[in-house]
Amino acid sequence: MSDRPCQDLCPGEVTVVAPPPTDAGLVFIGRIHTPWHERREAPRQGSREGPVCHIEVFDPWGPALEGLAPGQEIDVLYWLHLARRDLVLQARHRDVPRGTFALRSPVRPNPIGLSRVLLEGIAGQVLAVRGLDCLDGTPLIDLKPGVPPRP
Amino acid sequence: MSDRPCQDLCPGEVTVVAPPPTDAGLVFIGRIHTPWHERREAPRQGSREGPVCHIEVFDPWGPALEGLAPGQEIDVLYWLHLARRDLVLQARHRDVPRGTFALRSPVRPNPIGLSRVLLEGIAGQVLAVRGLDCLDGTPLIDLKPGVPPRP
Repeated sequence: MSDRPCQDLCPGEVTVVAPPPTDAGLVFIGRIHTPWHERREAPRQGSREGPVCHIEVFDPWGPALEGLAPGQEIDVLYWLHLARRDLVLQARHRDVPRGTFALRSPVRPNPIGLSRVLLEGIAGQVLAVRGLDCLDGTPLIDLKPGVPPRP
Repeated sequence: MSDRPCQDLCPGEVTVVAPPPTDAGLVFIGRIHTPWHERREAPRQGSREGPVCHIEVFDPWGPALEGLAPGQEIDVLYWLHLARRDLVLQARHRDVPRGTFALRSPVRPNPIGLSRVLLEGIAGQVLAVRGLDCLDGTPLIDLKPGVPPRP
């Protein structure tokens, strides 16, 4: 990421030789519009207090929005297309390196971002939501209705 | 899916010509072990009352588990490798067809499953968790620490 305080690797970070990402393929189904154009501007996690962002769903997927309604929560999955994929221990923002799977950092073997957001409105194939943290232009890969917390 | 009550399509379901899934590539980072070998045996959503399942993390990703601890919640992302990807309206289990993005069905443009589970134990590169719903052998694509519900 361009704003990592240490260029390339911070002290204590560990990389691996990652296998090629050829086990399955994704199709980008839309694009996310947010106010943030650089990583250092974006919040580290989304907040319901944050700005309304817009999720544009591409053709031919519009009919798949049928049944979503304002007021509900949805899980948004997106592709963190700028993130490196070979770090297993990360030290950005911390003294003691921590495992990638114990962090919600964008840097991970499969750089998929996940936010549970509040759906505020739908206009055609564009959703207005609160709770995102990603950069403007981030590719969308899935939308799922939220489920209540499990017992 | 082999257990869809209607072969191929149910009445009211709508497919599209899906673009090729070549926008990004995934690497399978592990495998999930559950008691369920066919879709009709598996729960429709995971439950904390359900059985302990095991998540095996492949090399070279083991060090990325550093910092996870029993008792915490984690989001598990997995690849629903048996699911078709071209349905926008679905009618399985319901009278009125509903949009794919308003369902947590495995049938979706990018068949990524998501469950928030309770981490019960870690032994080497194997996690014991409760709350999964997927078939035995499902490929793992990501693990993230859970976050508390947003305000």
